[in-house]
Amino acid sequence: VTRDFRSDNVLPAAPEIVDAVVRANAGSMTSYGGDELTVRVRERCCEIFETEVEVFPILSGIAGNALAISVLTPPWGAVFCHAEAHIEREELGAASFYSGAKLVPVGGAGGKLQPEAVTAALASARKTDMAVPACVSITNATEAGTVYSAAELRALCDAARAANLRVHMDGARFANAVAATGAAPAELSWRAGVDVLTFGATKNGAMTADMIVLFRKELAPELGIRIHRSGHRPSKMRFLSAQLEAYLKDDLWLRHARHSNATAARLAAGLAPHVELLQRVDANIVFARFPPALAAALRGEGFQFFDWGIFGEDVYRLVCGFATTEEEVEGLVEAVRGKMNKR
Amino acid sequence: VTRDFRSDNVLPAAPEIVDAVVRANAGSMTSYGGDELTVRVRERCCEIFETEVEVFPILSGIAGNALAISVLTPPWGAVFCHAEAHIEREELGAASFYSGAKLVPVGGAGGKLQPEAVTAALASARKTDMAVPACVSITNATEAGTVYSAAELRALCDAARAANLRVHMDGARFANAVAATGAAPAELSWRAGVDVLTFGATKNGAMTADMIVLFRKELAPELGIRIHRSGHRPSKMRFLSAQLEAYLKDDLWLRHARHSNATAARLAAGLAPHVELLQRVDANIVFARFPPALAAALRGEGFQFFDWGIFGEDVYRLVCGFATTEEEVEGLVEAVRGKMNKR
Amino acid sequence: VTRDFRSDNVLPAAPEIVDAVVRANAGSMTSYGGDELTVRVRERCCEIFETEVEVFPILSGIAGNALAISVLTPPWGAVFCHAEAHIEREELGAASFYSGAKLVPVGGAGGKLQPEAVTAALASARKTDMAVPACVSITNATEAGTVYSAAELRALCDAARAANLRVHMDGARFANAVAATGAAPAELSWRAGVDVLTFGATKNGAMTADMIVLFRKELAPELGIRIHRSGHRPSKMRFLSAQLEAYLKDDLWLRHARHSNATAARLAAGLAPHVELLQRVDANIVFARFPPALAAALRGEGFQFFDWGIFGEDVYRLVCGFATTEEEVEGLVEAVRGKMNKR
Amino acid sequence: VTRDFRSDNVLPAAPEIVDAVVRANAGSMTSYGGDELTVRVRERCCEIFETEVEVFPILSGIAGNALAISVLTPPWGAVFCHAEAHIEREELGAASFYSGAKLVPVGGAGGKLQPEAVTAALASARKTDMAVPACVSITNATEAGTVYSAAELRALCDAARAANLRVHMDGARFANAVAATGAAPAELSWRAGVDVLTFGATKNGAMTADMIVLFRKELAPELGIRIHRSGHRPSKMRFLSAQLEAYLKDDLWLRHARHSNATAARLAAGLAPHVELLQRVDANIVFARFPPALAAALRGEGFQFFDWGIFGEDVYRLVCGFATTEEEVEGLVEAVRGKMNKR
Repeated sequence: VTRDFRSDNVLPAAPEIVDAVVRANAGSMTSYGGDELTVRVRERCCEIFETEVEVFPILSGIAGNALAISVLTPPWGAVFCHAEAHIEREELGAASFYSGAKLVPVGGAGGKLQPEAVTAALASARKTDMAVPACVSITNATEAGTVYSAAELRALCDAARAANLRVHMDGARFANAVAATGAAPAELSWRAGVDVLTFGATKNGAMTADMIVLFRKELAPELGIRIHRSGHRPSKMRFLSAQLEAYLKDDLWLRHARHSNATAARLAAGLAPHVELLQRVDANIVFARFPPALAAALRGEGFQFFDWGIFGEDVYRLVCGFATTEEEVEGLVEAVRGKMNKR
Repeated sequence: VTRDFRSDNVLPAAPEIVDAVVRANAGSMTSYGGDELTVRVRERCCEIFETEVEVFPILSGIAGNALAISVLTPPWGAVFCHAEAHIEREELGAASFYSGAKLVPVGGAGGKLQPEAVTAALASARKTDMAVPACVSITNATEAGTVYSAAELRALCDAARAANLRVHMDGARFANAVAATGAAPAELSWRAGVDVLTFGATKNGAMTADMIVLFRKELAPELGIRIHRSGHRPSKMRFLSAQLEAYLKDDLWLRHARHSNATAARLAAGLAPHVELLQRVDANIVFARFPPALAAALRGEGFQFFDWGIFGEDVYRLVCGFATTEEEVEGLVEAVRGKMNKR
Repeated sequence: VTRDFRSDNVLPAAPEIVDAVVRANAGSMTSYGGDELTVRVRERCCEIFETEVEVFPILSGIAGNALAISVLTPPWGAVFCHAEAHIEREELGAASFYSGAKLVPVGGAGGKLQPEAVTAALASARKTDMAVPACVSITNATEAGTVYSAAELRALCDAARAANLRVHMDGARFANAVAATGAAPAELSWRAGVDVLTFGATKNGAMTADMIVLFRKELAPELGIRIHRSGHRPSKMRFLSAQLEAYLKDDLWLRHARHSNATAARLAAGLAPHVELLQRVDANIVFARFPPALAAALRGEGFQFFDWGIFGEDVYRLVCGFATTEEEVEGLVEAVRGKMNKR
Repeated sequence: VTRDFRSDNVLPAAPEIVDAVVRANAGSMTSYGGDELTVRVRERCCEIFETEVEVFPILSGIAGNALAISVLTPPWGAVFCHAEAHIEREELGAASFYSGAKLVPVGGAGGKLQPEAVTAALASARKTDMAVPACVSITNATEAGTVYSAAELRALCDAARAANLRVHMDGARFANAVAATGAAPAELSWRAGVDVLTFGATKNGAMTADMIVLFRKELAPELGIRIHRSGHRPSKMRFLSAQLEAYLKDDLWLRHARHSNATAARLAAGLAPHVELLQRVDANIVFARFPPALAAALRGEGFQFFDWGIFGEDVYRLVCGFATTEEEVEGLVEAVRGKMNKR
């Protein structure tokens, strides 16, 4: 049993996905995405999202976000995002590297943007020559482990559209948001007003494959060029597409996300009597404050988790993934209970 | 039997490599390259190159070239390369996108740069404010299917170093060059004067994994940052590293390349009596001129190959890979012979 | 009598400066800065700053700031600046366009950065992969019309240097800061810890000429290249240098600044009994809250001034320049007094 | 008497232009181009070009070219230009810095692009993923001192337009081209098919002011933003516009150019019996081969001129400007004649 709660990306891949890759390894296929698997991934996404979409398999969430944003803003654009957004805090400026644009961080409790806050930030930007407001980037599920409902998203996108801004969604954990809300994928994306979605798979059971789902087809040629010239279009695309096809098949992506969310809920419920939790647990992440001695003791027993200093002192992030087991969660809960009671 | 000679990247991956990926899919591992497989790939490269190197697994050759070059030149630098180089002709400006630098194309028969030609291009550049000469990029094996000997490389690198330029090698088919010359990998890289090598694996049997092998360790931090901020550092790095470890194990890479080269030699020998060949066949690529009726007839029978118009009218490129069989080659030779004799 | 308080740059140039330009218009001179006037500007700056400096005449403050910053940060760097800084709010992303870096806005009363706030922002940045902290940009006099003392600057630069950051100063109104503090130019720049200063002249009586004063001479070649390739090195440099030479001669720059500061102080004193002032008036700018009817009435009489919405509703900015007269100030004060008393 | 034939930009400015600057120095004016002088420059350009244009005064030819090109190409575009073009050889990559695009050098005798050569380069580019062909940049008068006729230009632009490319003209010496051909400015620009013209003034008698003349008004907002964010929009724009208004008034620009051209023709005629001339002398530049002893002797007597090594060994460039006198030319001719006869 591993005791690794550092991130969803320390986990292995799902067997269905690895099997699909093995199966894809047969015969010659047109390279650079001209293969049948890639075609099928697009078709499957059209079904899932109930509309025509273009799909670009991509290596990483950072690339997916940055490239998606780059077709929504000119180099002198402003991209409004949450102050804790991954694009703002963790990607070493990738979105600006690819697009040239300026990220404008906006505060908000629980990792969520509020329409009023976006509107105010926009009004402030327009008072000066800061940058030309171009788009809003929304993370769902958020970096704080919370989830926007379809209604919340619509309100947020409406605020953006009223100001003529486009909308990007960082969906590194989109599956967790769909699982948490029970809303249709379309409701949490284009029907709410999202123009392009970075749809994560790696964190949720794939090997190394996410995808950019583009709802504005007219941007596809430009996006294709940007992907090619940044080296993000693998020649043997089949091996990314195979992962994505398996990910989407028989709702594997949703089953994984439901498991992760449920596991995190169980973890939160187990920890709550003993330690402070810092955010609502809507998805698969729990933020807990551990006294220093507790954190050290847990680590001494092999539990792994990251400091999350931007949420305060002694705060740690605990992530449950598709492969996190009930035993692992119970083990952690037991360890915390035992150590806290001894004090 | 496939009849696909379009590119080495239409082929599947080697079973050893797929098996390694399957085996890597166990337990939790530190993400972003902190895993043991990535460590072992570096160690193996140190052995193969007989020196300390830093290794960065990377998704594609385009990314590998562009990122490698970006640490050898300032944004106002000039990068001298062959006029037919992949970085000049096929990558939609990736090297300039990543580095800001200007590519300065230099002519040369057989896809090869000559030291005198580089020196002349450099002297010309220095007469004006074109760009600040920064590095030379050499492809080995070349895009024309020829190979530089170790002595040729040394002479070329000496010319570069005499002018204080750094040297990048596009080694998308480095294995084919090593196999063709029998030279040690070190002789074809750092001992000749190469600072950083983009070492291909995808074209030679991997799924989607190349690597940047950096001989100047002091550039590693900058390269690491550039890779991260361009989204080229996969979180589940293990799945790239597993491919590379298997690729390097028991000389699989060399065995593949020897096979590809031998297969291409056999193809060239079989075609030579019937059609014009345009380049020396040192590695795994054959360029042949087919009369239009022949090309059409071959395609009608299911043979696949690309037009190679930059080498002249009616010129086609035929690529043999690790999985190209004797039967496939004989099939193509027979078809050409039959059709040409009928005329 | 003009009644124009919109900005220091709506004013004409000083006659001494125009005369110098006229005098410079004789005979042939080496272009691109190889002329004697440019040499003398550098020499004069060495005297004024009591150290060896390199000087680059430049067209505009935006270019001066952005180019100066571009030699202090890598493309993945973080540049900490005040949230109201001109580089953050008014330059359409110029600093990021030239450098690639991310601006990280830091709050602070009166337009001033506090060492503790910079240190906290830095610590927060270091908790994540936001960007690599590279430098701090300080505006003196600030956009709020306040001035850092030499001691305040030293404390701020010490905080930056303790964290290994370099320091840029936006000195669009550096003259006003020197005049206000009475400190030596060296005390307000390199002795405090500033690496490069954008030294304004246009706002303070020149036609169109500012200068980058570089205290780290080792960065001069790179800066020179960046200036050339961005088209900011005029061929007939003499006409910029002539302005700067005259600007620095016989303390014209200081006399202008003393006049502007004194005029603003007089304006503030005259307005204070009648309307709310929003910032300390250390330099040549007054921020006042005018009831809407007052603002409209003043504008109806030909007074001109800009809304300054980022400081609150009904806030206006009133700028006094080298050519603003006592009569103009008295005229505005009288008008405000008359209209406020009538109410 | 100066003996300076190095460049047109070593010369001073015309008295009419300096006077205009002195006159512009009165009262307050709206900054950043909102002044009346700038309005009048645009109106005058509309008359001269017989169509509606947008005009952006700009500091330098490098900036003018690079910014103009940046609105004609995406970052992944190819810009076809002559291999000796200033943008390719002398601007340290400015056009690529501003636009991201790749310059594709095309050969051609006498510094001139031929339609066939452009078409061939384009066809070659389209065979590979080099870059997306976007525009052609034409220099008139050329860097070789030759001039395109209106008919030649039309043919060249037709070739570009047939391929859906836009057209930029580097008109650093546009006045010399108009003077040489006698064609209407419109014939040498938009009527031939030019989309945007960088119209030089500095080399032809201004202090430091060129202008971008935009024939596609729909690109004006983007160009304005690009100019602002690169620091190329001076706050006291009046001082650039005053130069340009005077430059265009009473055909001063054409009178200067006619003088320069005539002076160069006289110089060429005087030199031809004694030394080899390398290009047709259509405009104001003469390229001559001087034996080393002659070059040294001339320089010993105070004559100044630049080596022009890219045109061959012992080749020198001699430039005549608006202020070059008959005496200066005769002095040089006499000196050459005397020294060559002695040998």
